[in-house]
Amino acid sequence: MTYNLVADALRAAMARQDGEAICRLLSELRPADLAEFLRQEQPREALQLFQQLHTAQRAEVFGYLPAEAQLQLAEVMDDHALSQLLTRMDADERADLFKLFDAERQERILRGLAHHEREDLRRLSSYAEGTAGSVMTSDYVVVPADMSARDALEHIRLTAPDAETIYQIYVLDAQQRIIGTLSLRELILGRPQAPISELMTRDVVSLQVHATQEEAARLISRYDLMTLPIIDEAQRMIGIITYDDALDVVEEEATEDIHKGATIGKLEGGLRGASLFTLYRKRIGWLVLLVFANIFSGAGIAYFEDTISAYIALVFFLPLLIDSGGNAGSQAATLMVRGLATGDVRFRDWGRLLGRELGVASALGLTMALAVSGLGFIRGGEQIALVVALSMVLVVMIGSLIGMCLPFLLQRLKLDPATASAPLVTSIADASGVLIYFGIATAILGLPDV
Amino acid sequence: MTYNLVADALRAAMARQDGEAICRLLSELRPADLAEFLRQEQPREALQLFQQLHTAQRAEVFGYLPAEAQLQLAEVMDDHALSQLLTRMDADERADLFKLFDAERQERILRGLAHHEREDLRRLSSYAEGTAGSVMTSDYVVVPADMSARDALEHIRLTAPDAETIYQIYVLDAQQRIIGTLSLRELILGRPQAPISELMTRDVVSLQVHATQEEAARLISRYDLMTLPIIDEAQRMIGIITYDDALDVVEEEATEDIHKGATIGKLEGGLRGASLFTLYRKRIGWLVLLVFANIFSGAGIAYFEDTISAYIALVFFLPLLIDSGGNAGSQAATLMVRGLATGDVRFRDWGRLLGRELGVASALGLTMALAVSGLGFIRGGEQIALVVALSMVLVVMIGSLIGMCLPFLLQRLKLDPATASAPLVTSIADASGVLIYFGIATAILGLPDV
Repeated sequence: MTYNLVADALRAAMARQDGEAICRLLSELRPADLAEFLRQEQPREALQLFQQLHTAQRAEVFGYLPAEAQLQLAEVMDDHALSQLLTRMDADERADLFKLFDAERQERILRGLAHHEREDLRRLSSYAEGTAGSVMTSDYVVVPADMSARDALEHIRLTAPDAETIYQIYVLDAQQRIIGTLSLRELILGRPQAPISELMTRDVVSLQVHATQEEAARLISRYDLMTLPIIDEAQRMIGIITYDDALDVVEEEATEDIHKGATIGKLEGGLRGASLFTLYRKRIGWLVLLVFANIFSGAGIAYFEDTISAYIALVFFLPLLIDSGGNAGSQAATLMVRGLATGDVRFRDWGRLLGRELGVASALGLTMALAVSGLGFIRGGEQIALVVALSMVLVVMIGSLIGMCLPFLLQRLKLDPATASAPLVTSIADASGVLIYFGIATAILGLPDV
Repeated sequence: MTYNLVADALRAAMARQDGEAICRLLSELRPADLAEFLRQEQPREALQLFQQLHTAQRAEVFGYLPAEAQLQLAEVMDDHALSQLLTRMDADERADLFKLFDAERQERILRGLAHHEREDLRRLSSYAEGTAGSVMTSDYVVVPADMSARDALEHIRLTAPDAETIYQIYVLDAQQRIIGTLSLRELILGRPQAPISELMTRDVVSLQVHATQEEAARLISRYDLMTLPIIDEAQRMIGIITYDDALDVVEEEATEDIHKGATIGKLEGGLRGASLFTLYRKRIGWLVLLVFANIFSGAGIAYFEDTISAYIALVFFLPLLIDSGGNAGSQAATLMVRGLATGDVRFRDWGRLLGRELGVASALGLTMALAVSGLGFIRGGEQIALVVALSMVLVVMIGSLIGMCLPFLLQRLKLDPATASAPLVTSIADASGVLIYFGIATAILGLPDV
């Protein structure tokens, strides 16, 4: 609530060009809120406001902005202002922004930085998008194993005030390999004279730099970690990923999975900022593919043209029957895809889950058959009711089984189970629905003599 | 990887009843892994293993188990063992477990606890599922405003070793209202003689106890908080929610949204553990509703029976055309529902997004019309090609607009936008698709004289 009030007041102050009020209101907003506000404004107004912030405030606000907004602001800043900003940003956020510039500006920026920062930036920005390396930061705390707890605390006070987090502390050997870790909590609650080696845990969960960011988020979530140390091929520690990054990754991955489930390709940088062309490109692929998948349904219908001509009332039930198979199938596929993604189900559960799905699907099919048989009777008499009810049971069962098995099959083939989207399952279920429905109809009603 | 190796060795040791190996292997697994292992075992084996753990280890492992597994183990433990376990668990996890017992056992458990713990447990377990209160914990650190940083650190060392987190410290007034907060980092990096009032931030983000857990997760994510303080109606601080709870909530909410998008009701406790009846119950509702929604499509077809009889070739294109509208509509709806859920889009963006969707949808429709017009020509000649192409453009556009607008409409009516599931959008798009297709066909081909 407070945010909305301040935001409205700020907009009003901007409209009447009241510099003093603007300045006061800007200081009342938290960095995250300020970023939100800047995103809502037009680029020109956003830039004006941004220029009124102190350098320290700018760096903080910047971290909360999405990539395109960062780039928009950075593009109108001169090299000096940008260098100042970059120096104050967290190492991982700095690298993310740096990657967005063209090669020429990257070179100019690198020249403006101190040697250590330059190397750090070069390294952090070199990891491919989506890897653990691309979200890690290089600011973390290391203490020697033989230091006492009291000295270690003093060491952290003096040397690590800029570390992204001082809450998890690492102990390395001469080859920079991790030999132990302790939390700041353990350091503080431990005996002040105790050596670090006595307080630390030797069992450390770590991850290779080229692993995926999802894997990093999964480890952080599974072991309730505050930070996950990242190691290179030689097992040397080179960075950490923090819990707040994991939160972002989980949200991002969920969005990606939800979009994939509706046959939408990965959208970088959110929906609001996406261009018309980007949206077209991310949506058209599967839509056209599915058109061709649906030709099978059409061909099935063409095959039964004689039956349909003779009993045109059957067409009334066509959408209802084939959609039911698709809907039940989508449910089953969605349950499996999400279960596999969160680790709730595994490949080896397949057999047991298949048995249960058979039970659930028959119960669903029978209920729905009951619901439509009355309608079938009213519109077409006893025989049509029988055809429709029988078809419903089979269509729902086949649809559910297709939906349930497809994600497992895809995983078996080392493809993404999430490709088993609702529309794909629906198309496959539709085609089998057409065959089942008209096949049963032809069998029960008989083919007329034309 | 290591986990799988140890787990296999442990299973082998259990098979040959090698007590010593079991004991050694148990100590090699981390609590989260041990919980994973117990979940995979049969209840009887799981219990046997669990009984071999120390009480402290039990409490830790317990926290990682899902609710049903906790209950299964707790039900075969005697009251004394259970009390011991409860005393060592985190306050929030303890309350979650407590809520699962029947009233009689709850009373027995409460009698076995010390006064303070009893009151705490009663209070924490009284909040409704899904509220901030239901995920908060009551173990947090408070320091007086006039204490020095050095004394505060000593105070924390001595009084708060059991707090769920000591990383965020709160300063309260005499009425228990929050007047400031500081992180352990700020405490340690601050001047040792400085009073807390000088180091603390007065601007504290907090949340009412009856707010939703999603709101809590949203605040933690938005402001990158480690803990979110929870207050009652009188603004008194009564608990905190920690970042790792937020991670769980985000995952849980994403799963719920994904399921809702495929018309599946909320599944408590995951897919694997769900019974056949539960799954039936969570899936049947919308399936039956959608059967009736599809009657509109059927009725549309019945209305155009004469056209269909005359040009039976039209039926070939029916699945392909109406599915395309549904698919484009599902894409649009999914983008909006997720955008609204993550806060990426807001109600007031509606107008701008509508304009863009019109552009995207016409581009999609034209591309797809191109893809099918050839097919239409081959199967039915020039006129059919024209009917199919025209229908495709309109069907895709109308489907997309329905999909895009429905979530906003639902939000306007204070309903959950996520109700605009792919199957619902598909059914509505289907019905309009039937009318468009056969309407255009009748107009262009003309109604034959029967």
